[in-house]
Amino acid sequence: MTTHRRWTLARRPQGLPQADDFRLEEYDLPEIRDGSVLVRVDFISVDPGMRSRLSADSYAPALSLGATVESAGIGTVLASRNPKFEEGAKVWGGFGWQSHFVSEGRGMQVLDPAIYCGPVHETCAIGVLGIPGLTAYFGLSDLGKPKEGETVLVSSAAGTVGATAGQMAKIEHCTAIGIAGSDAKCAYLREIGFDHAINYKTAGDLIAALKQAAPKGIDIYFDNVGGETLDAAILNMRKNGRIVVSGQIAEYNTTNPRGIRQTLPFITQRLKMEGLVVYDYSAKFNEARAQLAHWIRHGKLSFREEIVDGLENAPNAFRGLFTGEAFGRRLVRVASA
Amino acid sequence: MTTHRRWTLARRPQGLPQADDFRLEEYDLPEIRDGSVLVRVDFISVDPGMRSRLSADSYAPALSLGATVESAGIGTVLASRNPKFEEGAKVWGGFGWQSHFVSEGRGMQVLDPAIYCGPVHETCAIGVLGIPGLTAYFGLSDLGKPKEGETVLVSSAAGTVGATAGQMAKIEHCTAIGIAGSDAKCAYLREIGFDHAINYKTAGDLIAALKQAAPKGIDIYFDNVGGETLDAAILNMRKNGRIVVSGQIAEYNTTNPRGIRQTLPFITQRLKMEGLVVYDYSAKFNEARAQLAHWIRHGKLSFREEIVDGLENAPNAFRGLFTGEAFGRRLVRVASA
Repeated sequence: MTTHRRWTLARRPQGLPQADDFRLEEYDLPEIRDGSVLVRVDFISVDPGMRSRLSADSYAPALSLGATVESAGIGTVLASRNPKFEEGAKVWGGFGWQSHFVSEGRGMQVLDPAIYCGPVHETCAIGVLGIPGLTAYFGLSDLGKPKEGETVLVSSAAGTVGATAGQMAKIEHCTAIGIAGSDAKCAYLREIGFDHAINYKTAGDLIAALKQAAPKGIDIYFDNVGGETLDAAILNMRKNGRIVVSGQIAEYNTTNPRGIRQTLPFITQRLKMEGLVVYDYSAKFNEARAQLAHWIRHGKLSFREEIVDGLENAPNAFRGLFTGEAFGRRLVRVASA
Repeated sequence: MTTHRRWTLARRPQGLPQADDFRLEEYDLPEIRDGSVLVRVDFISVDPGMRSRLSADSYAPALSLGATVESAGIGTVLASRNPKFEEGAKVWGGFGWQSHFVSEGRGMQVLDPAIYCGPVHETCAIGVLGIPGLTAYFGLSDLGKPKEGETVLVSSAAGTVGATAGQMAKIEHCTAIGIAGSDAKCAYLREIGFDHAINYKTAGDLIAALKQAAPKGIDIYFDNVGGETLDAAILNMRKNGRIVVSGQIAEYNTTNPRGIRQTLPFITQRLKMEGLVVYDYSAKFNEARAQLAHWIRHGKLSFREEIVDGLENAPNAFRGLFTGEAFGRRLVRVASA
């Protein structure tokens, strides 16, 4: 008999999430009725954006205490009484931190073998072709609006959102500068085409380091971080610069956010700062996914995955997103297919 | 023999400007050659935006030590050897804190009697039809983009920029909420059509006061202030809200700006914050001025002027912009016409 396990929210985290904030539960599955499928979860994601929703309402309502932690996932249909999903089909959707579920298939899609083949792994569905890649895509193209010859700065650049945004900047013939938290991450950024990579832990004065990397100033700052990094970027923005607020990871684990000190440059440099929630673009997801897959196939976009084994390790994998330990798209392998 | 007097920058102010930061000098005027005119300055403006330029480069380079303080002005042509300006003509332009000057007329314009008549006073040229009114006009229409039924919040609302922005919001069939620093100013805001006026000095919790005035949230925040007020507004913005950064008067007199704490709502509410320097719109100034004058003539836009007598009082009049003492467009009468 298979054991069904899931992680639920045991209490609202204070600061950095702790193991005790989550509870690993066993549960029974309902019967599969007409129209339903039984899915075995193979991979789940851990997402920095979920941190806000563990504590309070955010881009979506707060997760309820006792609810299964939400996430993206990839799985295999073990049994089906729904003609849209064959037994054995690979599917993806918002599966949550759990090993199995029974569903009527809403929000679940079969992985299209025409897209997920060759260099485009199946796990890309919840990585570079999933929410992180789409966030980079719409944030940079719709809000950043890069023009040839401009300078694009990206923070948390070795993550999937940042690495995708930086490589898109290169595709658009811009100069790409990445900020990351280790020499290994900076080496990776140069390897995938960034013109400059700054290790903020060893760079000393970040304002000066940015000035050196972008002597003419920054046109677009694709911000995954917020806080001091955002201030340093603002002080280096050129006239009519655009700041894309994609994430604010420095502010997620605190009830006392730092924010920014520098608002005067919004006037003097005519800056624009704009946030996005990628779900607002869902009508265009397929189009964007096709473009991203095209770039992967043509060697213009690479991605890095980090697989953590075992559902029991999901909370630790999640916590590592906020300590600088994660490097690339972090997925948890729940079952070996 | 007329005495020519001007205020120059004696030292760079630290914090709130002091009398000793400026020096009142007498000076000789050059000969009037072919193409030149001699102008007697009748009114000058004191402008909060000048504060930044006394200390450092801003939207324009910093004022040099020893240079005449720049400002808008209205004057009378006393002598002319330039066919574009008749003796006795009323002119306006960037005249500076001085009593007289000789000029070839660049940047100087004759006051158009078709515009400046009836309820449109000549002093409007450097007030509601000058940089303050134009800042409100382009900030609200081009960046705020108000739509019927939306809620528009304005800070420093009893000043010319704020009062014009709020009245424009009413013209666009929006709800207008003003923040000001005295009951008299709040009474004035209600008198000119604001739906709600909040005295931030007595309101207590501004976040709660805004919540009460705008229970459905704020669509546009026209910000003249920055700092804590901006944070309180951000926490009350609706989805897709726009923040127009027109001024940041709370940040002008400090080398240690407060900035804002709240950047997460940029993501969760998809906010956009954008700054403007009105001179970028100079090609459209005449068109905007005609529209503003039209609204004044038709009773849809009113303005308030505060005349301080005597060039010797210019520094004090300027200082009063930052203490909450100023109420309406503050001009200094240099000569009685």
